[in-house]
Amino acid sequence: MRNVAIIGVGSTPFGRVEGTGIVELAVSACREALAESHVHRARIQALYLGNFVGERLVNQGSLAALVAGRLGLAGIPATKVEGACASGGIALRHGVLGVALGLYDFVLVAGAEKMTSATTPEVTAALATAGDDAREMRAGLTFPGAFGVIAREHMTRYGTTRAQIGLVSVKNHAFGVANPKAQFRKPVTLDDVVNSRLIADPLRLLDCPPISDGAAAAVVCPAEMARDFHPRPIRVLGTGHATGPGTLWEMDDITTFAATVRASREAYAVAGLTPADIQVAEVHDCFTIAEIVATEDLGFFPKGKGGPAVEEGWTGLEGRVAVNPSGGLLSKGHPVGATGCAQVYEVVKQLRGEAANQVQNAEIGLAHNLGGTGVVSTVTILGRL
Amino acid sequence: MRNVAIIGVGSTPFGRVEGTGIVELAVSACREALAESHVHRARIQALYLGNFVGERLVNQGSLAALVAGRLGLAGIPATKVEGACASGGIALRHGVLGVALGLYDFVLVAGAEKMTSATTPEVTAALATAGDDAREMRAGLTFPGAFGVIAREHMTRYGTTRAQIGLVSVKNHAFGVANPKAQFRKPVTLDDVVNSRLIADPLRLLDCPPISDGAAAAVVCPAEMARDFHPRPIRVLGTGHATGPGTLWEMDDITTFAATVRASREAYAVAGLTPADIQVAEVHDCFTIAEIVATEDLGFFPKGKGGPAVEEGWTGLEGRVAVNPSGGLLSKGHPVGATGCAQVYEVVKQLRGEAANQVQNAEIGLAHNLGGTGVVSTVTILGRL
Repeated sequence: MRNVAIIGVGSTPFGRVEGTGIVELAVSACREALAESHVHRARIQALYLGNFVGERLVNQGSLAALVAGRLGLAGIPATKVEGACASGGIALRHGVLGVALGLYDFVLVAGAEKMTSATTPEVTAALATAGDDAREMRAGLTFPGAFGVIAREHMTRYGTTRAQIGLVSVKNHAFGVANPKAQFRKPVTLDDVVNSRLIADPLRLLDCPPISDGAAAAVVCPAEMARDFHPRPIRVLGTGHATGPGTLWEMDDITTFAATVRASREAYAVAGLTPADIQVAEVHDCFTIAEIVATEDLGFFPKGKGGPAVEEGWTGLEGRVAVNPSGGLLSKGHPVGATGCAQVYEVVKQLRGEAANQVQNAEIGLAHNLGGTGVVSTVTILGRL
Repeated sequence: MRNVAIIGVGSTPFGRVEGTGIVELAVSACREALAESHVHRARIQALYLGNFVGERLVNQGSLAALVAGRLGLAGIPATKVEGACASGGIALRHGVLGVALGLYDFVLVAGAEKMTSATTPEVTAALATAGDDAREMRAGLTFPGAFGVIAREHMTRYGTTRAQIGLVSVKNHAFGVANPKAQFRKPVTLDDVVNSRLIADPLRLLDCPPISDGAAAAVVCPAEMARDFHPRPIRVLGTGHATGPGTLWEMDDITTFAATVRASREAYAVAGLTPADIQVAEVHDCFTIAEIVATEDLGFFPKGKGGPAVEEGWTGLEGRVAVNPSGGLLSKGHPVGATGCAQVYEVVKQLRGEAANQVQNAEIGLAHNLGGTGVVSTVTILGRL
């Protein structure tokens, strides 16, 4: 397999974007990534685009082909991939594999979602399709509900406190202040979090991500060609992609996602690294508790120790591993199909030394994307070339 | 690249399937393909699944991961791909590439759609998401309407007659009679077609495919291993995947789909074959006129001669190239995400000598899958190993 590098990234601002359709959002992020990479569009050989509920929320399927056409990438194979909220990570994985295996030299990867034009009940119902409809969701479960159950179990089993969970939100909102692409740029206190409106016990409004519009993109090529296109190319050290149970009741333990554990093991093995090597990580904090679970599943902390780790500041900018310095899904926003690519955007910026909340001398970073309650996950490990 | 073979195929019956969800449909087709291939499920390393509007019509996303889980393929990377009605062909292409490039030895490929539980207006609106919403479909265009415009232009430009177009339906419904998986198994006459209910001038009800439930699947592996698993493996000689304009008004000529032309050129080049080598073809007859356009775009007949070719019987079982001996989408049915895999299912059966309407001594066949009005297309060329 060839070594692969990222030579350009792009991202729209996340948030409520009025008057801009999903195709235009994706095109905008792609144009930024293409401009950074200095690759002429005629050299792009394939497009992989992550999107989850475009057909449902904005009446738009065929999204990958339409984006390719709108970018003037006439005729190239363009594929939308879907794995619920992990769609963007799956897109990146396929772009990387296409280059690593020698099929393509230049691949454009993107993720996009347009959600704010739908009503909140429509969005909640659309996102619920990430679960197993016939065997769980149809009974009335929603994702805030599912992660509420997971939070309660984590508290019961490991003594994780309401304050520890809330501190994830405090940390990530503090990071969002400096991020010009973030949807929320105001700090919140622990009091704000634990007194915000109850959504699904014990989770409150500030434990949840917003409904967002946005897109992010990256250009990948063989590592040996990368310096011809960008002065600070970022190498893809390893990727992982795995699946897990589609319902809570099929999980042996609802406080761990097998798909994350499997995907990270694959990525660490390919990269020849261990969790201790990761200096900065964008993890899938679709709810506060999800960040705590992710930091455990990724091996940053032992099982059950993710809560104390937040409290001790080990996930802060100068902690053992800086987690979600972009602001994460909670503050940056969560346009679901875009999130996996937006995480990679942030890690690339960190490793280049260009991030808003810069981790000093960051050389190795990780992006973790999750679908549903762990039905699918991707992990991407990046390093300076 | 390694040579790739198909060692097992499966298909549910197509039609209205009451009481069976989309996951179960996909699982059923996959189980049939796995049983034929004699590959133990523990050896399957990846799943690619084509589906278009599962989130919208049956509240089910995450479909690839759920199907992998239900089959007991615990943890493997499972990816849903979407390219409107070409989703199944894109899934097959990715399974083939994964094996050809040496990433996997055994990949399961599937396509599935569940449509009959929704109302006809819901289905029409869901399918319209294959087009460019903001720049065409939102104005009220539907796919029967788009293909009606294309049919009228083909008649005007090339002298194609209403009878020639209708004879596609007569031929394909005649083929459907013998196909145990087909939704419609009754012959129709040309009088029946041209007197059926007007849908979108000049297209009538019997020019259109039904709304269908169904799934189809295939198992692929390296050709050199194939005979250990199936006595009559089928080799994948070439695949193509390309995109084209997303609206009618962006097309230079609405009687030809650039994506089909590009995808077929790629597939012919990889296979080292020409259109004259193809003995049997399953082409994307989402409307009668679409079959005529496809037989021209694939190079079976010169532009404008697809109509006379039908009239002369050149697309019949003993014609120059047997087209849609399964009954095609018109008669077999069109569960949109499944169709690309179902076409491959039929061509595999033909090349093994196991088809209901068998083309004598068929050694080389082609499957052509189309999304929207040519926004994306895949072409797969198969041959006896």
